[in-house]
Amino acid sequence: MGRSGRPKIVIVGGGFGGLSAAQALARANADITLIDRENHHCFQPLLYQVATAALSPADIAWPIREILRGQSNVSVLLGEVRSIDANARIVQADTISLPYDYLILATGVTHSYFGHEEWSVFAPGLKRIEDARTIRRRLLLAFERAELTADKAERARLLTFAIVGGGPTGVEMAGAIAEIARQTLAKDFRHIDPREARIIVIEAGPRLLASFPGDISDYARRALEHMGVELRLSAPVTQCDAKGVVAGGERIDAATVIWAAGVAASPAAAWIGAETGAAGRAKVAPDLSVPGHPEIFVIGDCADVKDENGKPLPGIAPAAKQMGKYVAAVIRARLARAPAPPPFRYRHYGDLATIGRKTAVVKMGRLELTGFIGWLFWGIAHIYFLIGVKNRLIVAMTWLWSYLTFKRGARLILASRDRA
Amino acid sequence: MGRSGRPKIVIVGGGFGGLSAAQALARANADITLIDRENHHCFQPLLYQVATAALSPADIAWPIREILRGQSNVSVLLGEVRSIDANARIVQADTISLPYDYLILATGVTHSYFGHEEWSVFAPGLKRIEDARTIRRRLLLAFERAELTADKAERARLLTFAIVGGGPTGVEMAGAIAEIARQTLAKDFRHIDPREARIIVIEAGPRLLASFPGDISDYARRALEHMGVELRLSAPVTQCDAKGVVAGGERIDAATVIWAAGVAASPAAAWIGAETGAAGRAKVAPDLSVPGHPEIFVIGDCADVKDENGKPLPGIAPAAKQMGKYVAAVIRARLARAPAPPPFRYRHYGDLATIGRKTAVVKMGRLELTGFIGWLFWGIAHIYFLIGVKNRLIVAMTWLWSYLTFKRGARLILASRDRA
Repeated sequence: MGRSGRPKIVIVGGGFGGLSAAQALARANADITLIDRENHHCFQPLLYQVATAALSPADIAWPIREILRGQSNVSVLLGEVRSIDANARIVQADTISLPYDYLILATGVTHSYFGHEEWSVFAPGLKRIEDARTIRRRLLLAFERAELTADKAERARLLTFAIVGGGPTGVEMAGAIAEIARQTLAKDFRHIDPREARIIVIEAGPRLLASFPGDISDYARRALEHMGVELRLSAPVTQCDAKGVVAGGERIDAATVIWAAGVAASPAAAWIGAETGAAGRAKVAPDLSVPGHPEIFVIGDCADVKDENGKPLPGIAPAAKQMGKYVAAVIRARLARAPAPPPFRYRHYGDLATIGRKTAVVKMGRLELTGFIGWLFWGIAHIYFLIGVKNRLIVAMTWLWSYLTFKRGARLILASRDRA
Repeated sequence: MGRSGRPKIVIVGGGFGGLSAAQALARANADITLIDRENHHCFQPLLYQVATAALSPADIAWPIREILRGQSNVSVLLGEVRSIDANARIVQADTISLPYDYLILATGVTHSYFGHEEWSVFAPGLKRIEDARTIRRRLLLAFERAELTADKAERARLLTFAIVGGGPTGVEMAGAIAEIARQTLAKDFRHIDPREARIIVIEAGPRLLASFPGDISDYARRALEHMGVELRLSAPVTQCDAKGVVAGGERIDAATVIWAAGVAASPAAAWIGAETGAAGRAKVAPDLSVPGHPEIFVIGDCADVKDENGKPLPGIAPAAKQMGKYVAAVIRARLARAPAPPPFRYRHYGDLATIGRKTAVVKMGRLELTGFIGWLFWGIAHIYFLIGVKNRLIVAMTWLWSYLTFKRGARLILASRDRA
């Protein structure tokens, strides 16, 4: 029990899942602590726009404590969880120990290199603001270095961009890099022609956007090819080093490699000794609690949850949000000694992916949109889900400006931990 | 002569001086190369707003090559100059050698710790985007760490912010930090009250804003005190360490110390073996060329130039811009074998400094403005001098939003090289 005699709820992670859970507990008579290793919630669906210099980090990230400022039963802490004592019911962070009566783990996923974690230095992934800044820096530096070199082969390597993974992130990154090279930077250099850049999407499976219907995959392929993006389908990556990648047996010399392929769950399951399913996700009961620990819930990308067809839930914001709201309802019911809600059921609203200027694909139930209409729908939906009037206005204005001028407003090369 | 047989002009530095020189040479029949170690031009007058989480880096920084994209006689390079061979007329950068017929050095200033360079780790200064991010991170982390600690003395130290230097930057930083503590963060924490934060401005001289008239200094002092900022005047700093500072004999325990005091010229003078004046600035002839090297010009903050009263020019954007335009005119005249322009004369338009919400001071000739009118004037003047319609709109909108909501839109703690 808390210092006020109220039950203590600890939420680890301030992403879509953790934040939704905290907000859905607004009226719970409990002391809630949300802990995250970042001070901000990041709107991941637009992270690729930070990586490609279209938006600034602050346009898609908000201080978690500001979002929850009005909710007096929540205390937000900045800290990194090190371990959990599930018997004593204590979360151990680097800075503080947090006892709990209920625990919600919403720590998301990180990149997976399929057992080749050493590739991570050569091929950064895109999950956090810091990742986006690293990719932005490498992307822009590649053009700057190409402008400076007199060596033709090195110049070609610097102007080759390989994106590993043909899902929504890979397709979005490829389209955005093609726009940067063909339009934004077209007239900015004197010694190179950025339009000569090669952008290559490498996908292990036979088609792009595997979560969409086949005709949409075909559309995305044609749209990318029309933008001058090369595709390597059914080409698993077998090597990744300082020079480039080997995909489907072909050596591709590329100074910039971006990892948009596998993900692995964060160590949430390991902290509590839970059984894991695919990609290290924690196995959970139908109410998203951990078997044997009805007071611990795992939600979002780090929970192993299936839909009614037995397929794993997609790693998208709506899934995490639905789980966050659901476990909040379970906990509220327990606090009120009311009957438990029925088992969790995920409701899939649809899939969206943008490919480039005036081109996006949308699949919502029986509705399929492509091209300009799909792109408008995509833009409006994303602005709608941003937090706060100011960021919506700024992102809308920045997009309109980019649309009219072909420019990108955040072309800054800033130092980072990344030394490559 | 250039590969085209045209004279080669190299400009080192893409700040206000170097950029103005490049732009004023737009019609020169010459091959111009502008080299900078950053890819962006930074609008330094608003850098303190990035440091205090009001604006994003990209709101006040633009890729230099984009600014000069339309000027076909200019090539922009990203690189750091290592040395200059003034006899062979070659600039040696880390990546490339640049021969020149005319050389313009516009490399600005860095912080000076008056012989105590070891203080720089404890008391970062504010000259580059990277500095602003470091300060923003320390500022926001101090509140986060105070929220986590149970130790009263440590909490007080974490909530003490010392600003060394009572010039415009020091006054602006102090006012902004006071606003963050008293208003922006007031309701965001559960264990601390950010309004209890101490903000202390330490000035070695007897008054704030020494470049303004005495009544404006008094006004600034009263305005800061009204905002709860403590002042230590005639209090030179004699010690600076991990715990805080000693100023005028008084020990001040402060987790965050910001250096807004001395500056020293960049090593431009040393590169060419030029004689130096105060703060390491290169001595120059009346046409801003280096005595003995009529083909080398030094402009902006790294040139030792006096006004008609024998006072050094202020280190502000208009002074650098005027010098940039002037040396461009000198070079154009030489290229055209026309008579040289008359010696450089600086024209001082005025001084501006903002103190906080609805409070700024302006001194332009006989015009003196304070309070809300001064603040409006300050805001409009700064938006006017920003580059591009988009950034003007975004900064104006962000300021309006901050004014109405007391919020700050860029409260992100991001990793940096800074390990403190």
